Amino acid sequence: MASPLEKLINSLKKFPGVGEKTATRYAFFILNADRSEIDDLVKAIEIVKRDLRLCSRCFHLTDEDLCNVCRDSRRDRSRLCVIESPLDLLAVEKSGQFKGIYHVLHGVMAPLDGIGPGEIRLNELLVRVREEPIAEVILALNPTVEGEATASFIKERLKDTKVIVSRIAYGIPVGGSLEYADPLTLGRAFEHRTKI
Amino acid sequence: MASPLEKLINSLKKFPGVGEKTATRYAFFILNADRSEIDDLVKAIEIVKRDLRLCSRCFHLTDEDLCNVCRDSRRDRSRLCVIESPLDLLAVEKSGQFKGIYHVLHGVMAPLDGIGPGEIRLNELLVRVREEPIAEVILALNPTVEGEATASFIKERLKDTKVIVSRIAYGIPVGGSLEYADPLTLGRAFEHRTKI
Repeated sequence: MASPLEKLINSLKKFPGVGEKTATRYAFFILNADRSEIDDLVKAIEIVKRDLRLCSRCFHLTDEDLCNVCRDSRRDRSRLCVIESPLDLLAVEKSGQFKGIYHVLHGVMAPLDGIGPGEIRLNELLVRVREEPIAEVILALNPTVEGEATASFIKERLKDTKVIVSRIAYGIPVGGSLEYADPLTLGRAFEHRTKI
Repeated sequence: MASPLEKLINSLKKFPGVGEKTATRYAFFILNADRSEIDDLVKAIEIVKRDLRLCSRCFHLTDEDLCNVCRDSRRDRSRLCVIESPLDLLAVEKSGQFKGIYHVLHGVMAPLDGIGPGEIRLNELLVRVREEPIAEVILALNPTVEGEATASFIKERLKDTKVIVSRIAYGIPVGGSLEYADPLTLGRAFEHRTKI
């Protein structure tokens, strides 16, 4: 085997769920693809690794100070969706059901693993709710024990404010992950959110 | 969605068999992976795109004049395996069963698509068989109509030489089940049965 090809296959094997055969197919795709397509790929990888940082307001990924959603003047700034990860945010955006703004926690509380409110973007959330004209906080956390506990904690911390705290409906299969939910299910989950 | 991430996802979606969700997972893997791992990946991609060319003897992929196999003095130079593509060559190498050398045709003859002997590396094969000390030519082409036709063509062209022309066995895959084998394969398996 040509050694450069072997090195490429080894790099591609580190991708999630990719074994020897898939990595080999990808390597040959790269080998045979147009030079310009691969240049685009390499450029995209380098920009993502070099320029992506967290939005200074909602902590979503962005290559500017504020993310696309926070910069978009058409978004409803009275509705704030609290979410675990940028990956979950992309899934919600895909559903097209939610027109408000976001707050990305980057995790959920897991006291047994030493992850308290200070380890995720929870204090920043509480500050935002008090400072921004937010009427409703929609919790769109994964339906895990930690997600539920984090939801309860947020509800508790916001009980002295006038904001409505709601949670997306259990349209999401329990034990499932937002990342893999189909847009329709996610859309229903937003539509049928319930006050907690 | 952060636009650089979107661009990366779009590039990754061009990989064979990769859709939106898999591309998104790969993009987040790239985003979260160690900088050094991604540097290795990008370097491997660039070397493959820039340096890989065809071995001047067997037409396998290499970054030097001769490929690894052709450079390896331990290979049996009297046995030449004729193969369709570098991908097939890698599969044969993985089996560890063949210790001879190769000739990569880069396709098979398909007269209806305008692919004659001159469009693949067939003339180069005939020259090698006459010039190199080859005793046996083993055809390891895919069992398609075109593969069969190409095999017959090669056999015909080599009939005035003393080399033995053989073909790898067709049959039931090891670990496979007769129940699921297609009739053609089963027919071949019976036709080419071996005495035990």
